[in-house]
Amino acid sequence: MEKLYSNLDLVYEEMVEIRRFLHQHPELSFEETETAAYIADYHTALGHEVRTNVGGNGVLAYLRGAKPGPTVALRADFDALPIHEQTDVPFKSKYDGVMHACGHDGHTATLLGLAKVLNGLQDELEGTIVFLHQHAEELPPGGAISMIEDGCLDGVDVIFGTHLQAQMPLGEIGYRTGALQAAPDRFDITIKGKGGHAAHPHDTKDSVVIGGQLINNLQQIVSRKVDPLDSAVVSVCNFVAENPYNVIADSAELVGTVRTFKEETREFIEKEMERIIKATCDVSGADYVYTYTRGYPTLVNHKEETEFVAEVAKEVPGVEAVKVTEPIMGGEDYAFYLQHVKGTFFFTGARNEDWDIAYPHHHPKFDIDERALLHAAKVLGAATLQYMNEYANKSLNEIG
Amino acid sequence: MEKLYSNLDLVYEEMVEIRRFLHQHPELSFEETETAAYIADYHTALGHEVRTNVGGNGVLAYLRGAKPGPTVALRADFDALPIHEQTDVPFKSKYDGVMHACGHDGHTATLLGLAKVLNGLQDELEGTIVFLHQHAEELPPGGAISMIEDGCLDGVDVIFGTHLQAQMPLGEIGYRTGALQAAPDRFDITIKGKGGHAAHPHDTKDSVVIGGQLINNLQQIVSRKVDPLDSAVVSVCNFVAENPYNVIADSAELVGTVRTFKEETREFIEKEMERIIKATCDVSGADYVYTYTRGYPTLVNHKEETEFVAEVAKEVPGVEAVKVTEPIMGGEDYAFYLQHVKGTFFFTGARNEDWDIAYPHHHPKFDIDERALLHAAKVLGAATLQYMNEYANKSLNEIG
Amino acid sequence: MEKLYSNLDLVYEEMVEIRRFLHQHPELSFEETETAAYIADYHTALGHEVRTNVGGNGVLAYLRGAKPGPTVALRADFDALPIHEQTDVPFKSKYDGVMHACGHDGHTATLLGLAKVLNGLQDELEGTIVFLHQHAEELPPGGAISMIEDGCLDGVDVIFGTHLQAQMPLGEIGYRTGALQAAPDRFDITIKGKGGHAAHPHDTKDSVVIGGQLINNLQQIVSRKVDPLDSAVVSVCNFVAENPYNVIADSAELVGTVRTFKEETREFIEKEMERIIKATCDVSGADYVYTYTRGYPTLVNHKEETEFVAEVAKEVPGVEAVKVTEPIMGGEDYAFYLQHVKGTFFFTGARNEDWDIAYPHHHPKFDIDERALLHAAKVLGAATLQYMNEYANKSLNEIG
Amino acid sequence: MEKLYSNLDLVYEEMVEIRRFLHQHPELSFEETETAAYIADYHTALGHEVRTNVGGNGVLAYLRGAKPGPTVALRADFDALPIHEQTDVPFKSKYDGVMHACGHDGHTATLLGLAKVLNGLQDELEGTIVFLHQHAEELPPGGAISMIEDGCLDGVDVIFGTHLQAQMPLGEIGYRTGALQAAPDRFDITIKGKGGHAAHPHDTKDSVVIGGQLINNLQQIVSRKVDPLDSAVVSVCNFVAENPYNVIADSAELVGTVRTFKEETREFIEKEMERIIKATCDVSGADYVYTYTRGYPTLVNHKEETEFVAEVAKEVPGVEAVKVTEPIMGGEDYAFYLQHVKGTFFFTGARNEDWDIAYPHHHPKFDIDERALLHAAKVLGAATLQYMNEYANKSLNEIG
Repeated sequence: MEKLYSNLDLVYEEMVEIRRFLHQHPELSFEETETAAYIADYHTALGHEVRTNVGGNGVLAYLRGAKPGPTVALRADFDALPIHEQTDVPFKSKYDGVMHACGHDGHTATLLGLAKVLNGLQDELEGTIVFLHQHAEELPPGGAISMIEDGCLDGVDVIFGTHLQAQMPLGEIGYRTGALQAAPDRFDITIKGKGGHAAHPHDTKDSVVIGGQLINNLQQIVSRKVDPLDSAVVSVCNFVAENPYNVIADSAELVGTVRTFKEETREFIEKEMERIIKATCDVSGADYVYTYTRGYPTLVNHKEETEFVAEVAKEVPGVEAVKVTEPIMGGEDYAFYLQHVKGTFFFTGARNEDWDIAYPHHHPKFDIDERALLHAAKVLGAATLQYMNEYANKSLNEIG
Repeated sequence: MEKLYSNLDLVYEEMVEIRRFLHQHPELSFEETETAAYIADYHTALGHEVRTNVGGNGVLAYLRGAKPGPTVALRADFDALPIHEQTDVPFKSKYDGVMHACGHDGHTATLLGLAKVLNGLQDELEGTIVFLHQHAEELPPGGAISMIEDGCLDGVDVIFGTHLQAQMPLGEIGYRTGALQAAPDRFDITIKGKGGHAAHPHDTKDSVVIGGQLINNLQQIVSRKVDPLDSAVVSVCNFVAENPYNVIADSAELVGTVRTFKEETREFIEKEMERIIKATCDVSGADYVYTYTRGYPTLVNHKEETEFVAEVAKEVPGVEAVKVTEPIMGGEDYAFYLQHVKGTFFFTGARNEDWDIAYPHHHPKFDIDERALLHAAKVLGAATLQYMNEYANKSLNEIG
Repeated sequence: MEKLYSNLDLVYEEMVEIRRFLHQHPELSFEETETAAYIADYHTALGHEVRTNVGGNGVLAYLRGAKPGPTVALRADFDALPIHEQTDVPFKSKYDGVMHACGHDGHTATLLGLAKVLNGLQDELEGTIVFLHQHAEELPPGGAISMIEDGCLDGVDVIFGTHLQAQMPLGEIGYRTGALQAAPDRFDITIKGKGGHAAHPHDTKDSVVIGGQLINNLQQIVSRKVDPLDSAVVSVCNFVAENPYNVIADSAELVGTVRTFKEETREFIEKEMERIIKATCDVSGADYVYTYTRGYPTLVNHKEETEFVAEVAKEVPGVEAVKVTEPIMGGEDYAFYLQHVKGTFFFTGARNEDWDIAYPHHHPKFDIDERALLHAAKVLGAATLQYMNEYANKSLNEIG
Repeated sequence: MEKLYSNLDLVYEEMVEIRRFLHQHPELSFEETETAAYIADYHTALGHEVRTNVGGNGVLAYLRGAKPGPTVALRADFDALPIHEQTDVPFKSKYDGVMHACGHDGHTATLLGLAKVLNGLQDELEGTIVFLHQHAEELPPGGAISMIEDGCLDGVDVIFGTHLQAQMPLGEIGYRTGALQAAPDRFDITIKGKGGHAAHPHDTKDSVVIGGQLINNLQQIVSRKVDPLDSAVVSVCNFVAENPYNVIADSAELVGTVRTFKEETREFIEKEMERIIKATCDVSGADYVYTYTRGYPTLVNHKEETEFVAEVAKEVPGVEAVKVTEPIMGGEDYAFYLQHVKGTFFFTGARNEDWDIAYPHHHPKFDIDERALLHAAKVLGAATLQYMNEYANKSLNEIG
């Protein structure tokens, strides 16, 4: 393990370079062909068996250890966001309107650096490592689901992954058994009233007024209809009824999101929304179209693997605190992997202690403290080696 | 008077031709240069003294009678609307997205035909006629106000005008003393909340929710705060908060209109809206920008002149009914003229009795029964001659 | 006519005494037995034929003129209100919690004084006068409907009546053809949700929240669904959901009133309310009970009789102004009489010019300037005599 | 420990008798004088030192062990509720409108039975036991706070208590470190609008409409303004604006409750409510009175003592499951004790497995499976003895 750590220290500078290169060359979800090629080339140069175009732009690389053992998948996502970067860093995005504002550049750099180091330990490896480079995490349906369909989890025994967190102090690792990230669904509502001249409201079914009532009524889902001990969010984010100042709206478009942790709550809200939409439209005799699109599922960490990684993390140099983290309402398509194999997803603190403000993820001024890459690589690497070791022993015991 | 009527009958076919030509060549408010030139040429050909570019694209033509008498202004507007015509008439608009969907083509044709006939009666005319061709009625601030500033009412004793009404049966004339058309004002509201991620509503000031409440609260102006015996409309027509499905709205734009008949109600609503906007934003600690733009004033017909025209209309051949009409909530910048000189504005029925549907004004399928042009011309012409005659007598009496 | 006026001047002091006596002895609607007896005694003393207990506590007295002619009914109501008087007048109510706060004491005094004077003119009277003393105007279903059923209008050709108006200047008479007073209906709504512990809203259907939404939604009837040129009021006056601070409301009671002038608007609102109530309850899956109780109809004055009284009033000494009055949203069961016979109802100004405040009707400090009684008596008396006279002539002409 | 259990088995029948006697003789909060006397007598008979009228009707009894050791307080509450019992049990309440509908009869019976058994073990007891019989748990400000002021915790090292739970299966013990029960606060709001006649809404400030908006706006606290990962409830339970059907409400009374676990959330809501109330009244220019009354604090269990009791409970005969329980939104003034001394509060399952319905606490048909008394007594007794034992050892170690 000491070798892992010291070798990672040596490769840290390269990780930073990779991260900065990727940061300068961000690509939008489902369009990450250059990044995918970059990743594939890196693994090919290491001598890894590489599969490209996995479920889209996904890349898989295999490192087979000298000894028998389990198959461990390590996942990093690599897509960027349609955001115009506003930082002053020297490695600012070269592509106008596209930015790595969520740290996926860091995830990829971490995994590539770690791949190089683990490659050097091949003789001691007890099993196989799958470097799972996933495209399109930011945009539903996401890349995970198609990569799974394309076999990325075949033979995999366990999966580990992390997200750099700009709001969590550098040196901290956050873990949580059970629900860690919410299911982020989307709804689209069209209110179909009846337009007309603004001076004759009685001849219309005013879609703006109906929409106003609907926004109001939807508040009751969280305030009255979901158990206060459960967590849920219903946000109407987009409301568009574009008309001249003197023409009453014929229709209005509402788009928003629902966030839940429990499947029963998710199902309840999907149905309850329709009840509320229908009844609100009934007030004015209007019609509607309602579409509820499930995003990623709730990310549910497995208990044993989560506690395992937490224990490992406590011994990692540079990691100063390993804490149970609160769940978050944001979604993550890593959730799909955990529906198929055991594993866990944890947070790696990336907030520089000298920052007055840590800009939130998806902010045009988002940034991370790059030393977090080293922490992430060490925890992932240590968890992999330790898991292989314990698994081997356990297997012996079970056999024995 | 019989000569007036029979000569108008003779010129009817030309009026229809003019109307159809104008219908095929509509021009938007403040852009009606071709139409203005057409009108000016017509009057020039008749030998009238013509002023062009009056307060913009306005045209004035003067017909001076052989005998002394009052100065009577007759007004017709000539701008068209940004509407894509959907009728099947052979004289459909040749300009895509521009349409005479309010009958101003008919108003202009009526006045030109009437000008030709009155020109033929010059020897008997006791006074002067001002043919007041107004541009830009449809778009505030409208053409009337600038034409007045440019002298169009100088020396005018009385003004008459009419609007063809596609919803009123052909053969009917509608008149009303006092308020006939509402003051159509406009408001623009920007709610300035605080955006953020849809999963963290507690870190935001949700402009969509605030907007929903605001729409609600604004209903109370009419339902609770204006005297039920008074008439007012407050319509929010445009509500735009355009955002991705998972980003809570930083701001929202609301645009709409207020319609009133009484100045005190108008002032009250302008102020009360601000109170409601401010308080509604206060619920969430949000800011706002509120602009209230006065449109045309209430069109208030003068009693004596209105009853005068009504009496005249009863004798006009083809006019089957002369009725007191309900006021309408739509605005009309003819209102400005009535603030300066005496006069009246009346409605001329233009609904064909065989139509199942009479499409409303400003509708892409709007049309009129052209025989209404003849009724309008006869009433305006008869009122002019009769007014001159009575005015002369009255002057004699007053002098005597 | 001069005799009528001068004799009324002589009887004015007695009218005031009667009014003050009645003011001191007010009786609630449907309980006015003492007042009815007082009225009956007065007429009996004058030698009039009297019918008591007409449709309840109603009193009819007949004065048959010496000459043939029409039958004219004059109506005065005589019930008081459940209000605790707060004036300082020496003739303050002796009955705690009961008050003549609407001027019915004045109406009755007016009619009794007028009866005495007309009685003295019996020899000249051309026809019959019915003194129609109506009980229970304040409380639906009112006394009019049962008095009509009991024959109070049998043989009546025309009916006249007036209301003293504390807000209208003394010396003014207000008249209006057509709708003068609104139809005052009542609605009762019970929201049947599901109660429960305040800490577990998700197990309830919160009737208070549903009621809040309902109040909101009902605003749209007037603000969006009734023609702005029409007049309507929907007021929820009573909202009761009485519960401990920690028990969510199982049900809520809403009671209020609807005021309209047009039958079609009345019917529309009755139905539209149910649509809104149902849909609002649907938002939470709650039930409801909805009752709509029609109050008095719209009071619609007949054109000919109204203009007739207006003309008469202009000649009455003491009457300084005869004006068209605005309609009022309050109801009046005089409306029923006008559904059966021709006639009119007018307002008699009773506001003292020196008052800073004229307390509104039904206010604990309500008062009237008693000189209005004389004006009312003179207009009613003159209208009666003039009507009889014209009717006689007209009959002759018609016969002739 | 075996002796404790077997002796409790022997006293079980008496516990049931006590519980049924108390059930038949319930007393309202702050009026429990007979019950207090009953309890005091019982302890006196056992030879315990007894203090009565502690902070009101509270009773303290002291059992001093033969050996030195810590002081352990065991708490049971004994007040009943203003509910009309609707069960068919033979020991139904004899006092109309008063009922032990929350199990406090069982709590008291448990503690008295346990007192008898512990009394028999006096020779072996290492320390002192305080039997803390608290009055008035159901009605804020509750009895705990005044009993503390009156010294009930003086010298106490740790406190244990339990609540019988009719919804939790018999045989189950529920525990939770940290927040177990919410802080149940109360708010009272008076909206001070301006009443008037229902036909003239424009002369009023309609308190019912304002109240409707307020209910609506208050929903946003939970739906938008509190972190979705936190738990809070804001319920308006009482809404009273009592008026005749035709009188617009001058004022409206709203009463309700706020439930929170975190102090910062509690403070936020108290302030945010005022902001919302003020702004909502501003919409109509109305005034308000707002009172926020803090109820009990959040009940926060101490970690070490909670885990200690959980471990003990696992060994108790009859206890089949010891589980982490979800927190509940209901309040409990036991919370005050935990602000002063270490300790824990746990739930004892009392739902009979054969019941189709387990009526909730405070329901007129509420009941418990009495065998739960034995489980509660055994867990409390075992925890006491074990704590004394460990404490003694620990002290030795610490000293050593």
